[in-house]
Amino acid sequence: MATESRGTEGGARPKVTITAIAQEAGVSVPTVSRVVNGRSDVSPETRARVEDLLRVHGYRRRQRVPGDRAALVDLVFNDLDSPWAVEIIRGVEEVAHQDGVGTVVSAIHGRAGSARQWLKNLRARASDGVILVTSVLEPVVHEELRRLNVPIVVVDPAGSPALDAPTVGATNWAGGMAATEHLLSLGHRRIGLIAGPPRLLCSRARLDGHRAALEAAGVPFDPALVVQGDFYHESGFHGCDQLMDAGSPPTAVFASSDQMALGAIEALRRRGLRVPEDVSIVGFDDLPEVRWSAPPLTTVRQPLADMGKLAARTVLRQARGEEIESPRVELATQLVVRSSTAAPAAG
Amino acid sequence: MATESRGTEGGARPKVTITAIAQEAGVSVPTVSRVVNGRSDVSPETRARVEDLLRVHGYRRRQRVPGDRAALVDLVFNDLDSPWAVEIIRGVEEVAHQDGVGTVVSAIHGRAGSARQWLKNLRARASDGVILVTSVLEPVVHEELRRLNVPIVVVDPAGSPALDAPTVGATNWAGGMAATEHLLSLGHRRIGLIAGPPRLLCSRARLDGHRAALEAAGVPFDPALVVQGDFYHESGFHGCDQLMDAGSPPTAVFASSDQMALGAIEALRRRGLRVPEDVSIVGFDDLPEVRWSAPPLTTVRQPLADMGKLAARTVLRQARGEEIESPRVELATQLVVRSSTAAPAAG
Repeated sequence: MATESRGTEGGARPKVTITAIAQEAGVSVPTVSRVVNGRSDVSPETRARVEDLLRVHGYRRRQRVPGDRAALVDLVFNDLDSPWAVEIIRGVEEVAHQDGVGTVVSAIHGRAGSARQWLKNLRARASDGVILVTSVLEPVVHEELRRLNVPIVVVDPAGSPALDAPTVGATNWAGGMAATEHLLSLGHRRIGLIAGPPRLLCSRARLDGHRAALEAAGVPFDPALVVQGDFYHESGFHGCDQLMDAGSPPTAVFASSDQMALGAIEALRRRGLRVPEDVSIVGFDDLPEVRWSAPPLTTVRQPLADMGKLAARTVLRQARGEEIESPRVELATQLVVRSSTAAPAAG
Repeated sequence: MATESRGTEGGARPKVTITAIAQEAGVSVPTVSRVVNGRSDVSPETRARVEDLLRVHGYRRRQRVPGDRAALVDLVFNDLDSPWAVEIIRGVEEVAHQDGVGTVVSAIHGRAGSARQWLKNLRARASDGVILVTSVLEPVVHEELRRLNVPIVVVDPAGSPALDAPTVGATNWAGGMAATEHLLSLGHRRIGLIAGPPRLLCSRARLDGHRAALEAAGVPFDPALVVQGDFYHESGFHGCDQLMDAGSPPTAVFASSDQMALGAIEALRRRGLRVPEDVSIVGFDDLPEVRWSAPPLTTVRQPLADMGKLAARTVLRQARGEEIESPRVELATQLVVRSSTAAPAAG
């Protein structure tokens, strides 16, 4: 079996762990991991010292050799509950498929039991790499992934990236700025924001971009115009209601996910308010279906499929022991103007 | 390697194919396949004759034995371009994950080259089973799948099921009937239908259900009120325009997919017509996001995730050599009434 033979082909020689190598080299485990994975962000001296120790101890890198290839990548989501997910899957699958590699899709539901089951499955199938599209992994899962020494790429790292792994994201700050600049250019001055979960880096970046656009235009930032959402429809619905119930409601709302934007449109519709005649709405993501919302949504496009493709290319490069271009890549977002935004109503 | 050892563990004994067994037994290849896969729809005499020949020739069933387990199922779509897909993936993944089995997701884009690449990958990874959510596979792909003798389940079989494999679908006819009965009960008499691709069985079943409801209510079926769509948004948009341009436009439209229903709502919005005040719309699928369309969509729920779960359970049973309950299962659809339907406007 491929699984059992990994790392033990040296015969009776005891397995050496990267933890042991790290101790002997006097460097951190992530640093050894970087050397093993061919990453460029290690000093030449450290790399040489670690490489020497790896050689001395007969450490076997995980790599594809004929007969020892799973030809699989694991793509892991917290939940498969969003059209967002299928865009990422599409990108990963396209690159992997061409390379003869299968894309194993899992959801771990933020539950420890489910994550442990996934780790068990991952170990058994000896995947060539892991693409994580999931925000919060428990420390024990990090530890286990490190121990497995499997190449990892994180897509759109949500929290502080605790794993020492390359990440692929989108230019969330620039996207937030573009959304609010668009509304300002139409003449809006009171602009509400339905923000994403504050523990996620992407939410904070979109909020900061929004603020930066306001400040650049000399419009004071009003914290009363910011409400909290969780990226799902329902929170956009309630968040928009909250904004419209305020003493001086906004004439435009930037919802920092498309799903929240659709929820906001529904909240306005129930109040008898028209989009964009009474209130303008901008979303974030550009899910395929928002071209068909009523009205078609002005939004900030995240290149989700392209992010999936880049993540797949990166993890497959690592699996082949090749160097990767950069440990942190952000792909450009782009404002897409449709029919949910207009100049504010006179008066 | 697991792949190479399959079916050759008998040592130097030449491989026997199911085609050879079929010839010798004087039965069809699908019949031998049914016996091999533990299906119940074979006469006891035929089963005994085939089992004897399998034993005589030392035919090795693909089955899980320790050390010879891929612990993978392949889930194959034509395209990963719809929120529809993620619902199916969610169901399959949930069952497979619990069973320690990985779900390998692929898209073959209806292209021969892509299907051949997938077959090559499938062969290499020796999946335990295949779930096809794809309409048209070329005959050569059928042939190759049969040769691989891997358990197959077809979800929502689109055309005439050419593969001899169990299928999982939804009650499309009853769903079509329920949609139109709902509109009739609100008082509509001129009801347009945006049909799905005629080559797909599910489209035809929805159309027939619609017709049956009309006939049961004594409302004559008017072919001028049926337009052709392809299940995607754009065709709903144009189809609805076509219906409204007719001399005597409908007061309600049954779009036989949610995506076409959203396209139809957008066509009406652009004409300045309100849903449901001016025209009622019913969809089909109940994708998660149509709870948040403007207005929230009345639709016929297809239990897509449940269909995925049942498909996964069925293919895993086959992989373990267990009998399956039934070669053809349809899960119930259900009308979900939201805000896109109302009584026709007076006059």
